[in-house]
Amino acid sequence: MMLFRREIAAAAGRIAPWVRHTPALRLAPDELGLPFPLVLKLELVQHAGSFKPRGAFNRILTARAVGELPPAGVIAASGGNHGAAVAYAARALGLRAEIFVPELTPPAKRARIESFGARLVRTGAAYADALQASRARQAETGAMEVHAYDHPAVLAGQGTTAREFELDAPELTHVLVATGGGGLIGGMAAWYAGSVHVVSVEPRACPCLHDALAAGRPVAAPVGGLAADSLGARQVGALMFPFARDFVAEAVLVPDEAIRSAQRLLWDRLRLLAEPGGATALSALLCGAWVPPEGARVGVLLCGSNTDPAEA
Amino acid sequence: MMLFRREIAAAAGRIAPWVRHTPALRLAPDELGLPFPLVLKLELVQHAGSFKPRGAFNRILTARAVGELPPAGVIAASGGNHGAAVAYAARALGLRAEIFVPELTPPAKRARIESFGARLVRTGAAYADALQASRARQAETGAMEVHAYDHPAVLAGQGTTAREFELDAPELTHVLVATGGGGLIGGMAAWYAGSVHVVSVEPRACPCLHDALAAGRPVAAPVGGLAADSLGARQVGALMFPFARDFVAEAVLVPDEAIRSAQRLLWDRLRLLAEPGGATALSALLCGAWVPPEGARVGVLLCGSNTDPAEA
Repeated sequence: MMLFRREIAAAAGRIAPWVRHTPALRLAPDELGLPFPLVLKLELVQHAGSFKPRGAFNRILTARAVGELPPAGVIAASGGNHGAAVAYAARALGLRAEIFVPELTPPAKRARIESFGARLVRTGAAYADALQASRARQAETGAMEVHAYDHPAVLAGQGTTAREFELDAPELTHVLVATGGGGLIGGMAAWYAGSVHVVSVEPRACPCLHDALAAGRPVAAPVGGLAADSLGARQVGALMFPFARDFVAEAVLVPDEAIRSAQRLLWDRLRLLAEPGGATALSALLCGAWVPPEGARVGVLLCGSNTDPAEA
Repeated sequence: MMLFRREIAAAAGRIAPWVRHTPALRLAPDELGLPFPLVLKLELVQHAGSFKPRGAFNRILTARAVGELPPAGVIAASGGNHGAAVAYAARALGLRAEIFVPELTPPAKRARIESFGARLVRTGAAYADALQASRARQAETGAMEVHAYDHPAVLAGQGTTAREFELDAPELTHVLVATGGGGLIGGMAAWYAGSVHVVSVEPRACPCLHDALAAGRPVAAPVGGLAADSLGARQVGALMFPFARDFVAEAVLVPDEAIRSAQRLLWDRLRLLAEPGGATALSALLCGAWVPPEGARVGVLLCGSNTDPAEA
């Protein structure tokens, strides 16, 4: 396990020229109506609007370093944020990119992907369907798949989020993270390795890590609700699961109404526009789905903001 | 002059429990299409959506410390941001507040002021007219005026922005700041006192510091255009002028189209929604109104975000 922490440190060095070190914002007690201080990591100012470029760049740069990038470039399936990140990284590195998104991917994310010059294919109801279609296409073109979460280089890239958060807020005892396919929380849990309590937050309508931890293995879960385009994986990744089992302290669920309230509060109090998945971790504190123990120093990752301002 | 730097340091201690230390975000060359690195101070995540609470709290807390707060509370005239800040501070400190805004104050700012429980009065075409009306009312009620810029405690409060920016980005050689009545840039120039080149940016339609520096004294200037609700003072403050004359390196003007483009770019690249006045300083770099000299390390203050997301 400790080996993986080294992978994350290596990833941080590899991707440093390509991603932003996103700032931490310290809030005093009561600022958001909570009786304890908070540290927010503003990962929503990352390139392409979410944490996803960390994993995408690490995956692609790792392959490039060993001469494994095919002429067809890269291919990915995504609810939208990962696709935008892969498209962004491909453009930055001079590669072709094809991105498969499902029907539920909102217009703002589709536009973002195309704005980076990628070829966009819209197919299937949810992420898992788009993934299947992208794999059929990959077999034809020979492009390199950049998986949205279940690849070691992706997991290590996303884990750099925790490394940065630890550098900027070493006092934290608990960190709340939204979970989709689990690349982000898996990488972060691997970095913290129990030194910080990592709390997973999922919408009730997308409970795949919650269900996996209950079952003792990745299992298929429902996909629906407000944040399905960013947190709607059917099943958590196989690679992340051991990290989650060992190092995710709790996996809580929140209703969609709590996510919407958290989005509104972020705009009202902080003038930050988060997409539903980006406000999910915070919502667990606001609605009381997770209550910190006495003396906890709590951090929250705001992980994405690819939304239409008029709708948020 | 050095005495005033001490006032700013004292203000920073006084207001620390009430305002946010806002984060700095470092951007590599080319991230915004500019061939040099940038440091952005994200003052738009400040309470009430702009830097204005710094001055408002310092003014009110200074008066409270010497028992000078009347039972009628506080009164202020504002294009909107200062009014929101005074209303916010008054609520936090348990005081009554009346805020006078002109017709041009947008609905989002009026709603914000009322959301903090202040009494809102809408009168006059521009800020100077609302100020006149507020002074007539002040003579009746005996409330304490919290001037939007031309008071030493307000100037010192706004100057804490520079102190924080210096702590977080000590390498900067040039800092760009948008100018309205000049409280912010006056306070910041007083803090830096020539150690950093402070560059004033104003819309062509609101050139009051530009005109004052050309005339050698505060003079009346036109008020209009996209950012008039935040930068539309008719004349810079008398107190800030000596600091500007001695320590503002340049005062440049930008067209409204450049401000709109900067707003769009901030959302597109950084998922930050700035109001027109909040994007004005950055716009000078983007449109080439100001070009840094070779080797400059440039900082930009993003100072406000009280806007309707659907319009930005």
